[in-house]
Amino acid sequence: MRLHDETVRHFASDNYAGAHPEVIAAIAEANGGHQVAYGEDDYTARLRLRVRELFGEQAEVFPVFNGTGANVVALTSLLPRWGAVVTAATAHINTDEGGAPERVSGLKLLPVQTPDGKLTPELIDREAWGWGDEHRAQPLAVSVTQSTELGTVYSVEELRAICKHAHARGMRVHLDGARLANAAAHLGVSLREMTTDAGVDILSFGGTKNGLLYGEAVVVLDPSAVDGLLFLRKLTMQLASKMRFGSAQLLALLDDGLWLRSAQHANAMAARLFAAVEGIPGVTVTQRVQANAVFAVIAPDAAARLRERFRFYDWNPATGEVRWMTSWDTTEADVDAFAAAIRSELGT
Amino acid sequence: MRLHDETVRHFASDNYAGAHPEVIAAIAEANGGHQVAYGEDDYTARLRLRVRELFGEQAEVFPVFNGTGANVVALTSLLPRWGAVVTAATAHINTDEGGAPERVSGLKLLPVQTPDGKLTPELIDREAWGWGDEHRAQPLAVSVTQSTELGTVYSVEELRAICKHAHARGMRVHLDGARLANAAAHLGVSLREMTTDAGVDILSFGGTKNGLLYGEAVVVLDPSAVDGLLFLRKLTMQLASKMRFGSAQLLALLDDGLWLRSAQHANAMAARLFAAVEGIPGVTVTQRVQANAVFAVIAPDAAARLRERFRFYDWNPATGEVRWMTSWDTTEADVDAFAAAIRSELGT
Amino acid sequence: MRLHDETVRHFASDNYAGAHPEVIAAIAEANGGHQVAYGEDDYTARLRLRVRELFGEQAEVFPVFNGTGANVVALTSLLPRWGAVVTAATAHINTDEGGAPERVSGLKLLPVQTPDGKLTPELIDREAWGWGDEHRAQPLAVSVTQSTELGTVYSVEELRAICKHAHARGMRVHLDGARLANAAAHLGVSLREMTTDAGVDILSFGGTKNGLLYGEAVVVLDPSAVDGLLFLRKLTMQLASKMRFGSAQLLALLDDGLWLRSAQHANAMAARLFAAVEGIPGVTVTQRVQANAVFAVIAPDAAARLRERFRFYDWNPATGEVRWMTSWDTTEADVDAFAAAIRSELGT
Amino acid sequence: MRLHDETVRHFASDNYAGAHPEVIAAIAEANGGHQVAYGEDDYTARLRLRVRELFGEQAEVFPVFNGTGANVVALTSLLPRWGAVVTAATAHINTDEGGAPERVSGLKLLPVQTPDGKLTPELIDREAWGWGDEHRAQPLAVSVTQSTELGTVYSVEELRAICKHAHARGMRVHLDGARLANAAAHLGVSLREMTTDAGVDILSFGGTKNGLLYGEAVVVLDPSAVDGLLFLRKLTMQLASKMRFGSAQLLALLDDGLWLRSAQHANAMAARLFAAVEGIPGVTVTQRVQANAVFAVIAPDAAARLRERFRFYDWNPATGEVRWMTSWDTTEADVDAFAAAIRSELGT
Repeated sequence: MRLHDETVRHFASDNYAGAHPEVIAAIAEANGGHQVAYGEDDYTARLRLRVRELFGEQAEVFPVFNGTGANVVALTSLLPRWGAVVTAATAHINTDEGGAPERVSGLKLLPVQTPDGKLTPELIDREAWGWGDEHRAQPLAVSVTQSTELGTVYSVEELRAICKHAHARGMRVHLDGARLANAAAHLGVSLREMTTDAGVDILSFGGTKNGLLYGEAVVVLDPSAVDGLLFLRKLTMQLASKMRFGSAQLLALLDDGLWLRSAQHANAMAARLFAAVEGIPGVTVTQRVQANAVFAVIAPDAAARLRERFRFYDWNPATGEVRWMTSWDTTEADVDAFAAAIRSELGT
Repeated sequence: MRLHDETVRHFASDNYAGAHPEVIAAIAEANGGHQVAYGEDDYTARLRLRVRELFGEQAEVFPVFNGTGANVVALTSLLPRWGAVVTAATAHINTDEGGAPERVSGLKLLPVQTPDGKLTPELIDREAWGWGDEHRAQPLAVSVTQSTELGTVYSVEELRAICKHAHARGMRVHLDGARLANAAAHLGVSLREMTTDAGVDILSFGGTKNGLLYGEAVVVLDPSAVDGLLFLRKLTMQLASKMRFGSAQLLALLDDGLWLRSAQHANAMAARLFAAVEGIPGVTVTQRVQANAVFAVIAPDAAARLRERFRFYDWNPATGEVRWMTSWDTTEADVDAFAAAIRSELGT
Repeated sequence: MRLHDETVRHFASDNYAGAHPEVIAAIAEANGGHQVAYGEDDYTARLRLRVRELFGEQAEVFPVFNGTGANVVALTSLLPRWGAVVTAATAHINTDEGGAPERVSGLKLLPVQTPDGKLTPELIDREAWGWGDEHRAQPLAVSVTQSTELGTVYSVEELRAICKHAHARGMRVHLDGARLANAAAHLGVSLREMTTDAGVDILSFGGTKNGLLYGEAVVVLDPSAVDGLLFLRKLTMQLASKMRFGSAQLLALLDDGLWLRSAQHANAMAARLFAAVEGIPGVTVTQRVQANAVFAVIAPDAAARLRERFRFYDWNPATGEVRWMTSWDTTEADVDAFAAAIRSELGT
Repeated sequence: MRLHDETVRHFASDNYAGAHPEVIAAIAEANGGHQVAYGEDDYTARLRLRVRELFGEQAEVFPVFNGTGANVVALTSLLPRWGAVVTAATAHINTDEGGAPERVSGLKLLPVQTPDGKLTPELIDREAWGWGDEHRAQPLAVSVTQSTELGTVYSVEELRAICKHAHARGMRVHLDGARLANAAAHLGVSLREMTTDAGVDILSFGGTKNGLLYGEAVVVLDPSAVDGLLFLRKLTMQLASKMRFGSAQLLALLDDGLWLRSAQHANAMAARLFAAVEGIPGVTVTQRVQANAVFAVIAPDAAARLRERFRFYDWNPATGEVRWMTSWDTTEADVDAFAAAIRSELGT
């Protein structure tokens, strides 16, 4: 039964979008008959092969339910009980996970302020010190987000420099790739160049924001970096019984490039929105538009009027900064209508 | 793409089955356009109404990803940091969750040995003592499973007696209803009679084993028993972003009785299997067959030969006890073929 | 200022006793001037040497505050986040620590019923299974208590068999030695014979019950069994700043045999009590009296009358079992007076 | 046996000092005979009365082992599992507890940069937002340190403003008073004026740094703010069995003003050191000297030479900032000798 108006689309979050039709089709194909539960099914087996093709021969994939789950499972597999994670203060793990890293795994986060959501070796060093001192939570991992929560993208060189810096200090590198596809689309590089080859040790690979019903994957790029992942996924309640359906969805994304096509489209829609609004008096775009988000400052009253028709989030109520996100299903007409509304509300 | 043989069905677990076609259809219906994430969508709103119709006006529903998640979220919402849970030693929370209750929420379990997976007031009292003594983890909840992990079913009277006993001692009652539908089908009572009206405070309502892709729900029956459930679901990583799809599946189960029809069928298949094997020399059924499982002792070599064609689990390798489970998609022909194979392997 | 009557002694717990005068003297000697905090002081350095003399060249000592702390630090250092501990159901870690192992470190306990508080290889096997199965908390350690919470003592051979059995299955062995001295006194063997040489991997060495103000020590016997102990002690809040005082007390016990003399005395007082009461009609001693406790069943009304003059604990209110403990400062006159009172209250 | 040179004193930490002779005497007085364990002794009873005299009729005291323990027990009693704590980035709970708040209790810290270790309402507001949003760890407590880790002291008015601000937003206030005595000595106000009357809800009262062997106390000032403290103290392993000795030490501090005399002396020694060094070229004092610490920047080579005779800590190796602490036993001669050495090493 349909309860909603399927023609409505917002600029609030890529989580507001539904699932790509190819994903729904993949689920129907994977249905029927019995498959061994908890990951011994044919779809998860195939996913393992596909992930190795994309990320390298040593890569191991562990499907999980959601992004917070992927991040916490990945970080926990990387860190002993005394470990701490250097991260940008704006990182999802620090601001949007209800404290899950601390509460589920007792991880200590060491947040660093950044101008654009991106860490650098210098910024990492603000918290990366004190190894061996039992009074200090031990900084043993760095977590970066690609693309970042601010819509910006690390270059491959920047990631490589961070990984080299971290490894030289005995720290491992986790990449929160809830929007990894959008970063790859922006950079025009393969998934592997941006991750395995840059030195990333473990990855949260995002599926939901890129058109799945649900489902992400922890991808281990350096198996020597982790321990007990199979157990940790279960004990953090991220192990699906009918895993074939999560794996089939991930395969739908990865098998013939749907992940990239969808991300390219979402990015293009953000770029179109940016192009449409950047000249409007009263709109100040605050971050580089590299992935599928536009951050801008507009007058609160104009924002309020816009919201009567389009949902989007406040980012910083103190400054009037808002976030506009596009997704795989945003259309050019959606963008044009939204841009026209912005122009209209700002009286230009 | 289809990678598996959809004609194969086993007797290993109701998790091996796929999703009911009506569930797939419901997902497709819920797709398209944008819906607010994290539970403010139209499907979750409708689910709230439906749950109140079924469980009573005060009932509150919180969709989650999986059964372990439902149990841990429910128990954590019920208990302070110093709480402990009296439970059957065979309970899923004690034996099959990788220690999630202890590890995610620091809960102490107080397991009690039972003959048939069912607690009684007397059995509860073996561990329900020591309130106020700071040295003892405080027994503040009882957890029962319905139907139990041994395929047995509490009568409504038995549940009522347990709830009354627990409440009189200041303890709350959680019901792990991963297979609640099978119990309702067996008892021929409504969901409400067996839960709310019996005095249960909070419920893990099972969906996956009853034909969903994924998805369970925490159902609060007495809101005064819980605290912070919204926050706890998020921080235990059980909050889905595109919640409309979990809710749409649960609605597919609940809206016109699919939950009951599927459970009745699964139970009937177990009964058919029981009827077919109970007279076979060399097969000793060890538990009452009330829901969708048959527990039996058979010779290990016969079990090994059977497994060349049908998967099922050892329950107790020391005694040769095995578990045979049926599901919503088990056919009469499946049962008959399996029973014939058992008969044949046992040489009768 | 003295607020209490220093002539009163009970039979409730060895925790009711004060500190041995030699211990007070040792603290006064360690006082004055500055010593580096957190364990780099001269007393802790000397303690390290002394512990190696007693337990072997590889032994490492970590002073902590209390027994629960010692147990949790020791077990946590031994186990990954997915580990579980096979233990007697009567063990202090299971019944008297408020759930600290579960809550502080997320450890899962796998309790086994025993007749006398002692595990055996057969009893261990009831819970030691399921390695590699992610659904089962992994049994990776066995914890034994010596002397047990029931006043019984493992022989060296029994400990050796347990260690061999555990090690053969990939499990490590923790010994809760809150009353290790009493066991050594009973067996007439050295600390090393009973621990290191028997195969124990890590030890909680008890000081408080043996005459300290406060203070226990985690003693690592096999350094390859543990990881991160220095960090774990701090993050579990068991690291004393002025550690010289804890170490000086432990040295007072260990340097010239005070630990053994005190334990021998406490044991002798329990033996004297046992001898005095065993023939009394209405007193049924329920456990072998090997260390410093006598467990007995007496009529509840007699127990109530006795308690007007002497404190002691109920062990099992359902059966009328009580626990009588002696300590380093119990006198022969105390025992004789108590035995006379028992005899008198039982009307014999 | 004495293993150390009792004439040596450093400027590293007030934890390097020993115990005040009156404290040793109090322990000896509390010794002898049996006292009920775990806090039902006569000394703890008396401590309860004394704390109420000092902090108000509703105050409740819970002795614990150490400062990290006091902070974690206090914060945990104040916060639900979804709570977060706004705190200065330099706070002990954030930098020096090995992550204990996160690991033991799953608390999320929300650190704020400050110029002098002191929070203000404005600084608190940087992290105090997002109530009701399940994605954000809920800011439900503020933690301030008095005197701060930088040797500065909040005025009573400043504390009052913070408490008012926090309470108006539904947040509770914890005060880490590891050096509360030093702050009281500086301000010349009573303990109560600075805490209860200012609106503080719960307090970690420091003993060790003020002349005890070991021992701090959680002091609840508003009992309606906390829950389960008795259980939490035990399950965090901060419950001493022979509590009489911790309580007797705290009584020695509190009964006739030893706490204040010792703190006044330590402060005076810091003031003397400040006066002696402030004019020396090459010494830049970086924080106001209000309690018992002097923070200064000096040339690293001079610091290195000084350390051949006096221990002290680097505070910020990047800037050359060091910390010099005085304690209850620092003498005028110690200060003068140290100041002379500084002058000499800096060549003036």
